[in-house]
Amino acid sequence: MEFKKIVEEKSAAAWKKYIPNLSVDCVVFGFQEASLKVLITRIKDKNVWALPGGYVLKEDNLKEAANRILYQRTGAENIYLQQFKIFSDLNRSNGLFDDFEDTLWNKQRFLSVGFYALVDFQQVNLVMDDISDACEWISIEDLPDFMMDHREIFDKALETLRRQLNHKPIGYNLLPEKFTMPELQKLYEIILGKKLNRGNFYRKMLRYDILEKLEESRKGGAHKAPDLYKFDIEKYQMALTNGFNEGW
Amino acid sequence: MEFKKIVEEKSAAAWKKYIPNLSVDCVVFGFQEASLKVLITRIKDKNVWALPGGYVLKEDNLKEAANRILYQRTGAENIYLQQFKIFSDLNRSNGLFDDFEDTLWNKQRFLSVGFYALVDFQQVNLVMDDISDACEWISIEDLPDFMMDHREIFDKALETLRRQLNHKPIGYNLLPEKFTMPELQKLYEIILGKKLNRGNFYRKMLRYDILEKLEESRKGGAHKAPDLYKFDIEKYQMALTNGFNEGW
Repeated sequence: MEFKKIVEEKSAAAWKKYIPNLSVDCVVFGFQEASLKVLITRIKDKNVWALPGGYVLKEDNLKEAANRILYQRTGAENIYLQQFKIFSDLNRSNGLFDDFEDTLWNKQRFLSVGFYALVDFQQVNLVMDDISDACEWISIEDLPDFMMDHREIFDKALETLRRQLNHKPIGYNLLPEKFTMPELQKLYEIILGKKLNRGNFYRKMLRYDILEKLEESRKGGAHKAPDLYKFDIEKYQMALTNGFNEGW
Repeated sequence: MEFKKIVEEKSAAAWKKYIPNLSVDCVVFGFQEASLKVLITRIKDKNVWALPGGYVLKEDNLKEAANRILYQRTGAENIYLQQFKIFSDLNRSNGLFDDFEDTLWNKQRFLSVGFYALVDFQQVNLVMDDISDACEWISIEDLPDFMMDHREIFDKALETLRRQLNHKPIGYNLLPEKFTMPELQKLYEIILGKKLNRGNFYRKMLRYDILEKLEESRKGGAHKAPDLYKFDIEKYQMALTNGFNEGW
C-alpha cells in the first residue's frame, strides 16, 4: 500500500493509543568490522532516510516506548538505551505532511525524545515496518541526507556518546564478548573522532584494570594471532561509577 | 483564592494554550555564603514543597518555555539553562488531584522535562505565583520533603551538575564575577560531594590557566585579605570544549 493511504488509515487509532505531540527517535549504534554503524530506514514513496522512531502509548513510560519501538525494528530485547535530549523546534517537521488533512495524526507538532541505543551487531535482525521500504546499517562516515532534523539528532547522539565514554558502559555494549585491543582502540578512536597513540592506549587500559586477558587468541589471518580480552564487568562498573580520568 | 478554585478556573484556558501531557520542572541553583542553594516553592493549601514548574505553550520550544517559567518566578533573563532528563513514570502525580473532575488540566498524565538553571544569586527577585504561598532559597543540605517525584528530579539535576562540572561553564554561572579561591573550591566540593585537598585544588586550577588574578583583594574581615580572581572566559570556554581531565 502506498505511504499516504497507510498513514491516513492509521491516524484515528493513533489518536486513541498515543500521547499527542510526543515522539521518540532512536539512534541505534552497532560496531562491525572496525566500523561504527547506525540503523537507518527509508520512508516509502518519499524516498527520504530517517532514524527509526515511533510514539508513546498512553500507558508507556519513555523507556518502555523506546524498547517497544526497537524491538519491533530489530527483534532485540534488553537493548542498552539512554535518552539524551528532546528536540522541540517549532518547524522541525515542516512540509512533510503538507498534502494531508489537518486532522492527520502525523501532521501534529511533535516534540521528539532522542534515545541512543547500543546493540551487539550479531543479535539484531532488521525488520521493515509498513511505511518503510529499506532498513539498513550504515557506517557513520557514509550517512545519507536525513529528513527533518534527524541529522541533528544523530550528531547530538554521537556527541553524547563521546561525553559518556568514560562513565557509561559503552565499550561493553558495543563490542562482542571477546575482542582484541586494536578493536577496542578503534572503537574509542571512532567515537572520539581522533587517532590515539597505541602504546598510551594500551597502558591506560591496562592501568584501569577493567579487562581480563583470555587464554585463547583470535584464529585465522596471516599474522600472529592477537590476544583476546573481555571486560571484567564488576571492575568496569566500579570504574565507571568513579569516572575514568576524572581526577578531583 | 484557594488552590482548588484557582486551578479549576485556569483549566479551560490551559487546554487551549499549552501542549497537553507535557510539563517543565526547573532545578534552580544559586551559590551564596559558601552554600549551594536551590529554589523551592510551597503549594497553597496543600502545604507541600515543589520545584518551580509550568507548561509548554503551543508556540514555545522547550527552552523558551523554561525561560518564560523562570522569568515569571525570578525576574531574571538570560539564565543559564540545560535540559537533563524527561521524567515519565506513569504514577508520578498519583493522588494529587483525586478530589477534582477528570477533565481538569492538572489531572492529566504529565511527562515532565527537567531543566537545571544556574543563576547569580544577586540578580534574582523571587516572585510568588497564585498557587504558591512561599518561594525561597534553601541549602541543598536542608531540603524539605517534596511532592511527587521532585526529589528524584533534584537528585538527577545535581548528578548532572557533577558530571558536567568539567565541560560546562558551571563555576562561571554560579559565582559572582569576582571570587576567592576558597569560594571556588567550596563550590567544587559541594557539587562533587567530597572534600578536596587545598594544595592540589589550587595547583590544578592554576595549571588549567582559566583564572585571572585581580589586583584588588577582598575587603573586611580580621585576617589577611584573600586574593580575588575572575574567569578568563575565552580560555575557560576553550578548556571546557576540550574537557578538563579528559586525557585521551
